[in-house]
Amino acid sequence: MRRPVIGIMGPGENATEQDQQLAYQLGQQVAQQNWVVLTGGRSVGVMEAASRGAQAAGGLTIGILPGTDASAASTAVEIVIPTGIGYGRNLVNVLASQIVVACGMGCGTASELALALKMEKPVILLNCNAQSQAFFQSLAPTYVTVAADPSAVIQKIQELLQQEPLSVKQN
Amino acid sequence: MRRPVIGIMGPGENATEQDQQLAYQLGQQVAQQNWVVLTGGRSVGVMEAASRGAQAAGGLTIGILPGTDASAASTAVEIVIPTGIGYGRNLVNVLASQIVVACGMGCGTASELALALKMEKPVILLNCNAQSQAFFQSLAPTYVTVAADPSAVIQKIQELLQQEPLSVKQN
Amino acid sequence: MRRPVIGIMGPGENATEQDQQLAYQLGQQVAQQNWVVLTGGRSVGVMEAASRGAQAAGGLTIGILPGTDASAASTAVEIVIPTGIGYGRNLVNVLASQIVVACGMGCGTASELALALKMEKPVILLNCNAQSQAFFQSLAPTYVTVAADPSAVIQKIQELLQQEPLSVKQN
Amino acid sequence: MRRPVIGIMGPGENATEQDQQLAYQLGQQVAQQNWVVLTGGRSVGVMEAASRGAQAAGGLTIGILPGTDASAASTAVEIVIPTGIGYGRNLVNVLASQIVVACGMGCGTASELALALKMEKPVILLNCNAQSQAFFQSLAPTYVTVAADPSAVIQKIQELLQQEPLSVKQN
Repeated sequence: MRRPVIGIMGPGENATEQDQQLAYQLGQQVAQQNWVVLTGGRSVGVMEAASRGAQAAGGLTIGILPGTDASAASTAVEIVIPTGIGYGRNLVNVLASQIVVACGMGCGTASELALALKMEKPVILLNCNAQSQAFFQSLAPTYVTVAADPSAVIQKIQELLQQEPLSVKQN
Repeated sequence: MRRPVIGIMGPGENATEQDQQLAYQLGQQVAQQNWVVLTGGRSVGVMEAASRGAQAAGGLTIGILPGTDASAASTAVEIVIPTGIGYGRNLVNVLASQIVVACGMGCGTASELALALKMEKPVILLNCNAQSQAFFQSLAPTYVTVAADPSAVIQKIQELLQQEPLSVKQN
Repeated sequence: MRRPVIGIMGPGENATEQDQQLAYQLGQQVAQQNWVVLTGGRSVGVMEAASRGAQAAGGLTIGILPGTDASAASTAVEIVIPTGIGYGRNLVNVLASQIVVACGMGCGTASELALALKMEKPVILLNCNAQSQAFFQSLAPTYVTVAADPSAVIQKIQELLQQEPLSVKQN
Repeated sequence: MRRPVIGIMGPGENATEQDQQLAYQLGQQVAQQNWVVLTGGRSVGVMEAASRGAQAAGGLTIGILPGTDASAASTAVEIVIPTGIGYGRNLVNVLASQIVVACGMGCGTASELALALKMEKPVILLNCNAQSQAFFQSLAPTYVTVAADPSAVIQKIQELLQQEPLSVKQN
């Protein structure tokens, strides 16, 4: 049986200091649960921080790159998937994750959450502003959870995984 | 010089009666300006209504389908582009449009608006609820306009096209 | 009823002088039949020449670009579809065409022909070397035709369109 | 430093008994070198056999699926990446591999080899007929090797990996 894959999405160049600190802690805690951490793979912002945190905890990290060249990946990513399809890779990010967590917000992250909800994947919001919370909860109320901190994210994921296969498509 | 291409995005199966009526009127008015109407191409909801309105006004219609088979397109679509890349086609929808108008809201539409803003395309919201307006304006304030009716959309597009190339990437 | 869309594929930067001359003639003759010419859209090689020939004959031209920016298209392309999915657009090229013609050969062209045959689209080879002819005929004998010149391509397309819907998926 | 990822491509439903036997042996031998085996992920033909062989040898297996649902993957695939982009995933298959090996031939496999050569990846042909060998060698002579059996494939990969970064883009 495969390990759960948790997608951690968030801003790249525009990530705040807090986005990155929380992403690092979240990556660490996801890895401590023996779950796989999947990100957009680049060596910046939430992608970098989440992968780095997971790596520090000895976890497995997957990175799905927009470009054609594996060398663009964070060195904290173990399995690199260069897709060559640009932002089309945002769809791959969410399909390859069983549960999608946003850590911070931006245009790319918003597209990933919207696609995740379209594909009926559970979405957890961490460090997202009030407008983001209100919007995504209005889009798909039963699929969206707001979490106060990384520990609350972990707890919610545990709940969702126990509800399988009702609310989480198993890999 | 090519004619401007206006993307009209919105719900498919979940479109409300009002979404569809406004999409029809908008398709008609866009076509009357001699602009091209681009949609997601399927024969349902806002895609169908916008294409139908544009066709009624003698306009040119393009439909970008998620599937592999052109026969899934609305009969009101003249140029059918089956992409075979599923919801990856949402990226193509926005890149092939100079300006993106949402008529109603849903997960797919939200992903298109987010990708449009990521690619720095102007976005106009018609018949979108308060949460949507607040969210997308918080994401990219200078690129998002809320319009009260189809005529206001047309007026905003005229303004944006006159500002070229400052705010609209020319096709 | 929609006009048939004929995809003309071939080398870009590596196109020979003969590839380009034949592509120009073919674009012209396809347009004279009132069929639409679809290419990979860039302003070089077979894409440029086929679009230019079709334009000279007053035909409608579609260009499916790999990148995100419409300004990369040949000025002879009327309908520009920037996909943003890199070489993933080769799949779109063949799905948006009812019949695929190769004019010259290269790695990108070979990928398009292989995908066309995978999707059960008829393929016509013009100015392709003996190895190409032998290979594609071995892959899918009933779907591949070798043509001696542009006129023979036109004649074969006419035959295929008359056999619809047996051998050509209608747009 | 990341382990090399070797893509093993080949027919699915149309794989011959010999294609599958060789794919199993090749998957096994690649895994014994501590290289990662990447396939198109489905539970049929060369994809299934190569993943099964690698699994038997305790290797790590990655599967890049065309569809949206991870449950379509071979149970011998450990890391499942559902892409949702249909045959657009053939591009991902080759970009996520450092070296691409074909085991048997078909339309999908041919598209992958052509894309691999377009992206300047080394290609090794196993159990491919004379027309395939002649064609791909004519397309990109310096990037294509014909191997007589799985051991010869392993030997060629070892050579290519030693020539890094000259001929193999490192992950």
